[in-house]
Amino acid sequence: LKLDTLLVGFGNIGQNLASVLLRDADYLRKNFDLEIQVVGAVETDPKGEFHSVCSENGVDLKTLLEIKRRTKTISSYPVAGGHRTSQDLIRNSGAQLMLESTPTNLQDGQPGLSHIKSALEGGMSVVTSNKGPLLFDLKGLRKAAEEGHVGFKYSAAVAGALPIIPTGYYSLAGCRVSSIEGILNGTCNFILTQMAERGTTMEQALAQAQQMGIAETNPKLDIQGYDTAFKLLVAVNSIMNADLKISDVKVSGIEHVTQEMIQQARGKGCLLKLIGRAAKADGQVEMKVGLEEVNSEHPFYSVNGIWKAVLFNTELLGEVVLSGGKSNPQLAAGAMVRDIVNLIQDTQPTRKTG
Amino acid sequence: LKLDTLLVGFGNIGQNLASVLLRDADYLRKNFDLEIQVVGAVETDPKGEFHSVCSENGVDLKTLLEIKRRTKTISSYPVAGGHRTSQDLIRNSGAQLMLESTPTNLQDGQPGLSHIKSALEGGMSVVTSNKGPLLFDLKGLRKAAEEGHVGFKYSAAVAGALPIIPTGYYSLAGCRVSSIEGILNGTCNFILTQMAERGTTMEQALAQAQQMGIAETNPKLDIQGYDTAFKLLVAVNSIMNADLKISDVKVSGIEHVTQEMIQQARGKGCLLKLIGRAAKADGQVEMKVGLEEVNSEHPFYSVNGIWKAVLFNTELLGEVVLSGGKSNPQLAAGAMVRDIVNLIQDTQPTRKTG
Repeated sequence: LKLDTLLVGFGNIGQNLASVLLRDADYLRKNFDLEIQVVGAVETDPKGEFHSVCSENGVDLKTLLEIKRRTKTISSYPVAGGHRTSQDLIRNSGAQLMLESTPTNLQDGQPGLSHIKSALEGGMSVVTSNKGPLLFDLKGLRKAAEEGHVGFKYSAAVAGALPIIPTGYYSLAGCRVSSIEGILNGTCNFILTQMAERGTTMEQALAQAQQMGIAETNPKLDIQGYDTAFKLLVAVNSIMNADLKISDVKVSGIEHVTQEMIQQARGKGCLLKLIGRAAKADGQVEMKVGLEEVNSEHPFYSVNGIWKAVLFNTELLGEVVLSGGKSNPQLAAGAMVRDIVNLIQDTQPTRKTG
Repeated sequence: LKLDTLLVGFGNIGQNLASVLLRDADYLRKNFDLEIQVVGAVETDPKGEFHSVCSENGVDLKTLLEIKRRTKTISSYPVAGGHRTSQDLIRNSGAQLMLESTPTNLQDGQPGLSHIKSALEGGMSVVTSNKGPLLFDLKGLRKAAEEGHVGFKYSAAVAGALPIIPTGYYSLAGCRVSSIEGILNGTCNFILTQMAERGTTMEQALAQAQQMGIAETNPKLDIQGYDTAFKLLVAVNSIMNADLKISDVKVSGIEHVTQEMIQQARGKGCLLKLIGRAAKADGQVEMKVGLEEVNSEHPFYSVNGIWKAVLFNTELLGEVVLSGGKSNPQLAAGAMVRDIVNLIQDTQPTRKTG
């Protein structure tokens, strides 16, 4: 199966993805009968100007990556597309698949939201790493995909390397997930672990996280619990068939944690963890994010440092816990490859044993 | 989608499965457009005699379960099929799906092996909880499924409640699994945990496990590491595209563990665990099962008691750890439901978003 594909966004994730598609082309063809032919790419530079590339016969990813590395844009690619907008490219490319990796915008989900909507409505399947659009209109986008009979996958946007969405969707298929709880923010967990193990203050631990490149320069969304809430919200709406908005979620963070609180928990044999949890109660899903004391019997007790974890409770399979560590653009690209493979195999009746 | 279905085997797992199919009929129809209509069931009594039931218009599962509970066999079901053999039923039912849950036979995989072969060759999809056939001819069965263009799923046979196969197959799709290691036997892990935490001997801990109903009356296969090896073997052959036989695996168990060994490990800050591991080396997969010392940095350090866990290493997504607890016929039935849903959605181009 040969898929004409658009790369929309060519930052860290987009470049990592292109590298993997280049390196693993043979592997994907051999194992999944899948040939990703990139026929267009578009990016926006810091000034907001578009740069695009398109070629019906396939863009050479090796050249594209080299040019991007050397010149910081893709505009000098031999058959450059000029300053075509992303929308122009999406509407006129005739591609079957869009790989969207523009930066997350938490104000209105743009431009990712429009990209994805246009693609799905135009009959193009979509894989995205961008959380923004999912926070603003997951329901609408899923509906557009269903009506357009195309695929739409976004596991890379939800703690990418930790396969939360695929676990809920495939590994627990039909098993009735009744609750999901998770340690979903590596920065917060690192800070809480440092405070417990080294006796540091919140501020010291945060500074260390920033120095180590774990925490964002502006860590507010992490620290206040919103990053946890955003990830869980998308997972819960997808897996538990809910339609929650961020305003439905009671969110608190770790900004007020003191050594005293850490020690108080320790006195009870507990660790403090920032946990997002969602559970069904009377047919409704309720969700919150906040600090919890976790004792040594709980599977999260040993989830420390930058490790994340999620615990599913299901009616048919009991408890299943998933845990993993790092998150970076390379892993997000890996999660997008996973989504591409699953998307194709979902829509092609080719995968039958296992 | 309405599927005429055979139940082959009606022991603990088969009855649990029938209960779930009965209870969740509405849920499966509503959420997955799936209607499982049981048109036949067959079991063998302790004397080796067959009892069967068949009805083109659907067997009433409630009645079937009640009769089985009351009379220990299904033979007095109103439209009983007499003493038809399972092979006769499989070859002549015209069903589209077989749910196979006969007991595991480690001598030759029978009768499950013949059941599954006949079904796949006759154009019937198969979901099984039976490890036996997979140990003897996984390759042949997968080939039969591919050639017959039918589905074949067996995640229930590999630590059912812990979704090892679906994780490798979907959550890590296209991510190139380079190694799999796991604590896969609850009895062994319980014994090692008891020895470490309570200072008991191997024999005392085993006796306790048997008293609690965790260990088999004949725990030899568990204790000697073979149960771990069997589970990992099926997982590795499925996920890592290998073709290993049990004779390729160096297997040792926990039968010679002493308190001295436990204390020696503790002196180094380690716990002893029975671990199965498989890794690619020079393109070949190598696998072994044996005792290992695990330090507090390792994700398995906190996997204690009856908990099991598996750690996947992948080229694209780094480390992913999956852990879970209990295993019983109810959970095996849950795993079979998961397989039914995935099988149908794999073969029907209906599942596209998530």
